[in-house]
Amino acid sequence: MSIAIISPGRDPKVWIEALRQELPNIDLQVYPQIDRPEEVEMALVWQHPPGFLSLLPNLKLISSLGAGVDHILSDPDVGEELPIVRIVDEKLTWSMTNYIILGVLNFHRQFVALQNDQREKVWHPSHPEIAVKVGVMGVGALGGDALDKLHGLGFDVVGYGFSEKKDFRHPYYAKAQLKEFLAEINVLVCLLPLTSVTEGILNLEFFQACRKGTYLINVARGKHLIEEDLMSALNQGYLSGALLDVFRVEPLPKEHPFWEEERIQLTPHIASVTNPQAAAPQIIANYKRLKGSQPLLNLVNRTRGY
Amino acid sequence: MSIAIISPGRDPKVWIEALRQELPNIDLQVYPQIDRPEEVEMALVWQHPPGFLSLLPNLKLISSLGAGVDHILSDPDVGEELPIVRIVDEKLTWSMTNYIILGVLNFHRQFVALQNDQREKVWHPSHPEIAVKVGVMGVGALGGDALDKLHGLGFDVVGYGFSEKKDFRHPYYAKAQLKEFLAEINVLVCLLPLTSVTEGILNLEFFQACRKGTYLINVARGKHLIEEDLMSALNQGYLSGALLDVFRVEPLPKEHPFWEEERIQLTPHIASVTNPQAAAPQIIANYKRLKGSQPLLNLVNRTRGY
Repeated sequence: MSIAIISPGRDPKVWIEALRQELPNIDLQVYPQIDRPEEVEMALVWQHPPGFLSLLPNLKLISSLGAGVDHILSDPDVGEELPIVRIVDEKLTWSMTNYIILGVLNFHRQFVALQNDQREKVWHPSHPEIAVKVGVMGVGALGGDALDKLHGLGFDVVGYGFSEKKDFRHPYYAKAQLKEFLAEINVLVCLLPLTSVTEGILNLEFFQACRKGTYLINVARGKHLIEEDLMSALNQGYLSGALLDVFRVEPLPKEHPFWEEERIQLTPHIASVTNPQAAAPQIIANYKRLKGSQPLLNLVNRTRGY
Repeated sequence: MSIAIISPGRDPKVWIEALRQELPNIDLQVYPQIDRPEEVEMALVWQHPPGFLSLLPNLKLISSLGAGVDHILSDPDVGEELPIVRIVDEKLTWSMTNYIILGVLNFHRQFVALQNDQREKVWHPSHPEIAVKVGVMGVGALGGDALDKLHGLGFDVVGYGFSEKKDFRHPYYAKAQLKEFLAEINVLVCLLPLTSVTEGILNLEFFQACRKGTYLINVARGKHLIEEDLMSALNQGYLSGALLDVFRVEPLPKEHPFWEEERIQLTPHIASVTNPQAAAPQIIANYKRLKGSQPLLNLVNRTRGY
């Protein structure tokens, strides 16, 4: 039994080291050198080449190398019967929450305006704190932690998601209550999984339902956002700004208007990067569970999409 | 009995309104129109003109209009017997803590470097999170809250102060243990009161005792810092950067080198601004306690200097 690492365009070395540290005699094959495809029973994948998984006749388990699995679910070669697991990592949650808090505080304290004043040598104590109520779409492990921490800092928070949640520990709106949710908040954090329901959810009609001047933080997937609609929403005042970590095309093309838009702060998909040291034990645990026919950890529910 | 508001260069209107809302028939005189100085028994001051308080023969209580009282203690006209009170305001603490967290997260996530990449249209996921241990100098109401909240976000924290504190809820160094404190941390938050002991404490010798690359956040007073020593410490690599809200001369003069120094982010003394609505009830309570000869709230200990 062999494990394949299929993560083109990224250096697999840190993964190999982290996995070997957990299980020294592990049999690893690393894309594109998969010489014994028939021996691969588990594939560790991140944005694998289309069609490649169909070349592994004895594949029994796919593990994402991150928290997201949309890159796996969108592959027609991945049969319904094939289990998919993902990484659930406290460090991932910690980084994501810190990134979100950074975005919320930068908006709350008007930090970008203050930096512009410094650049122009203007001493002008005229950027008061903006009263903030933060809405988080998607209240799983990541969204729940962001809500907890922001609440702990004394911010008003509210969650939104596609499933009913009785007794959720924060105010929560579900499904059809999207407009009520948006009417309450002025900072919107998108942490939704990418599914056929949520793709393109951040569109002009959505932004028009926001309170004027709402600030958007997208840390989920680029495909949640209709990018030209964000430009319209900024220009029409529905939104006052955005912090974006994810984009439809990554790396973001040089000619993309986001780069030069002062109301947009963008970062290169670094809000939360899977740490191989933290993820390797989970991968090895699932490898052993696969061999021992035990229940898998962090199994993805395909109906929900995460 | 009359209350004088002596806060030159700031608009006193918000204070008058807030105080009148608490006590409509209050007798207020506002600098420079103090027509009946002999009737003033309580003075609300913020950076009053030197010598002015000696013109109030029946002054019985001085209240700072903020959390700091160094501007009062440094006035030789203020006799030892005259009680001084200050504002203790949860909102002040809240704002200060948020500002500090913003500074810590901006350093931790290398946000300024990421912004520079955006300006240059560089997609380069090469600014990893910097592992952070935050030291807070001054662990009163403000410093204690900053330590609590940073700890709550999962950061390692340690406090430092000039008094012994048994059973303090965070790791703590006192007095002569400054070097041990500095050797542990890489983000330094100065929240010390300004006293003869602490003035100029942030000097080159101090910075040389810091771990290489330490990041400074000064939210206390400009006089804590020897400003030219900060430039030396940056140029010599003892510090990697600084977020400064306070300066020796405010507004910061146009020709000051801090404005153009990329490793310094500066803001115009806005980290925590006293909110008249929140402070007025305390001022009125002390006014009533003064009249009723009851113990005063938030009385300053002159020996400690805060």
